Amino acid sequence: MTTDVPPGSDRTPRVVAARKLLRRAGRDRAGRFLVEGSQAVREALRYGHVHELFATDVAAARHPELIDAAADVGARVSLVTDRAADSLSDTVTPQGLVAVCDLLDVPVTDALAGSPQLITVCVGIADPGNAGTVIRVSDAAGADAVLLAGDTVDPHNGKAVRASTGSVFHLPLARDRDAAAVLDACRAVGLTLLVADGRGELDLHDPAAAAVLGGPVAWIFGGEAHGVPDELAELADHRVRVPIHGRAESLNLATAAAICLYASVGAR
Amino acid sequence: MTTDVPPGSDRTPRVVAARKLLRRAGRDRAGRFLVEGSQAVREALRYGHVHELFATDVAAARHPELIDAAADVGARVSLVTDRAADSLSDTVTPQGLVAVCDLLDVPVTDALAGSPQLITVCVGIADPGNAGTVIRVSDAAGADAVLLAGDTVDPHNGKAVRASTGSVFHLPLARDRDAAAVLDACRAVGLTLLVADGRGELDLHDPAAAAVLGGPVAWIFGGEAHGVPDELAELADHRVRVPIHGRAESLNLATAAAICLYASVGAR
Repeated sequence: MTTDVPPGSDRTPRVVAARKLLRRAGRDRAGRFLVEGSQAVREALRYGHVHELFATDVAAARHPELIDAAADVGARVSLVTDRAADSLSDTVTPQGLVAVCDLLDVPVTDALAGSPQLITVCVGIADPGNAGTVIRVSDAAGADAVLLAGDTVDPHNGKAVRASTGSVFHLPLARDRDAAAVLDACRAVGLTLLVADGRGELDLHDPAAAAVLGGPVAWIFGGEAHGVPDELAELADHRVRVPIHGRAESLNLATAAAICLYASVGAR
Repeated sequence: MTTDVPPGSDRTPRVVAARKLLRRAGRDRAGRFLVEGSQAVREALRYGHVHELFATDVAAARHPELIDAAADVGARVSLVTDRAADSLSDTVTPQGLVAVCDLLDVPVTDALAGSPQLITVCVGIADPGNAGTVIRVSDAAGADAVLLAGDTVDPHNGKAVRASTGSVFHLPLARDRDAAAVLDACRAVGLTLLVADGRGELDLHDPAAAAVLGGPVAWIFGGEAHGVPDELAELADHRVRVPIHGRAESLNLATAAAICLYASVGAR
């Protein structure tokens, strides 16, 4: 029967197996995820563990250095049809280049090893684009790790990986559904817990805040709709608000996270 | 013939006319744009000039206060079918509530009136979601106006309006294709011109930067792909980089703008 399946088609067993990684259940079962596009594949080959690389003829011709690098790390390289590559993509403009990588997350204790100075904690972030952007800005700010707690979206989701523009490979990621336990772990390694909260009692730009912001801190960012749940916010050392000077009701999650993380960077 | 068109259908002349506002050419011709959803409509009624409000029965029943407010400002209120409301929406989940408003932009000189202290200039921003988010964070930071220069997307685009979450109504917006003239106008009112540039010579967190950041400034943000063109960047007083401490290659436009604008707020 397998003789009926042309090499590189979307029905080859390896492509069929890889396609299951588009869904979270498939990723968690296999312990692997998909990385699409030249930039992300480059970072995956440099910092991740790549098992397979699927490329169309056109993509392989455009990025011979990635094909070589994949072979160098022992990944299996398969030339596939456009249709097969498209079937592994969740974008509207597939790039014809998809790697299968080991999942990136490590235990929370590993992510917090080595006296971290700046940690990002996401609690209940639902949108993968937001999660990826927060990982990207955490990377840029020099954070030591990003902890994805509670009902936060899977950072291996294709949209999260894309929004991170490679940053998912740059710093440790950990996942734990028990957000209170994540906060306890942060406190145990000497971090001050700061919840970003539009109604927080400490103004980010209050001179008194600078000493706190510049020390070892875990910044805790909540979901798009309701922020950090009250019972978790009460566990933190401070609830910090980004001051709103105009008529805007609030900031979006990613911009608020960027302002908070860089306030800590600037306060050092 | 008009007797063939049921009241409130998507073929009534008023709905047909409003639908043309989904496109930029239609907006520029009519001098009006569409505002969708209860939050944005509320801000439009408070701060904008609303001519018409289209509502489905369900939306009207859910937001009687907006129907009343529309009547109070002399706007024509029309109950329409779901199909008609959907035809006025460019979202996947139409809310059944769409207002027709006057365009918001004013001349650049008007936007710069009254000794402004903090101005945002967008040059060549292509994505309407980015433009709307930059307008939102400018509002939050207390900016005096947002100037949309060069080939920047129309802030009256539906996606830009949504991303701004009402902020398009909160501060003056001006559009001018001549970006160099916009920068000249900013300088003429005493603003220091700062270009956000990942390769800029002044580090945002350099102690020497604080005095500049805290004064009257125009922050200039470039397009997603190539930033501010060199010939414009050279006109500025400083090219300021947000420092990257991790392995991230860059920050996205909206997060970089948030960090820069709030650095000015914090430096005051």
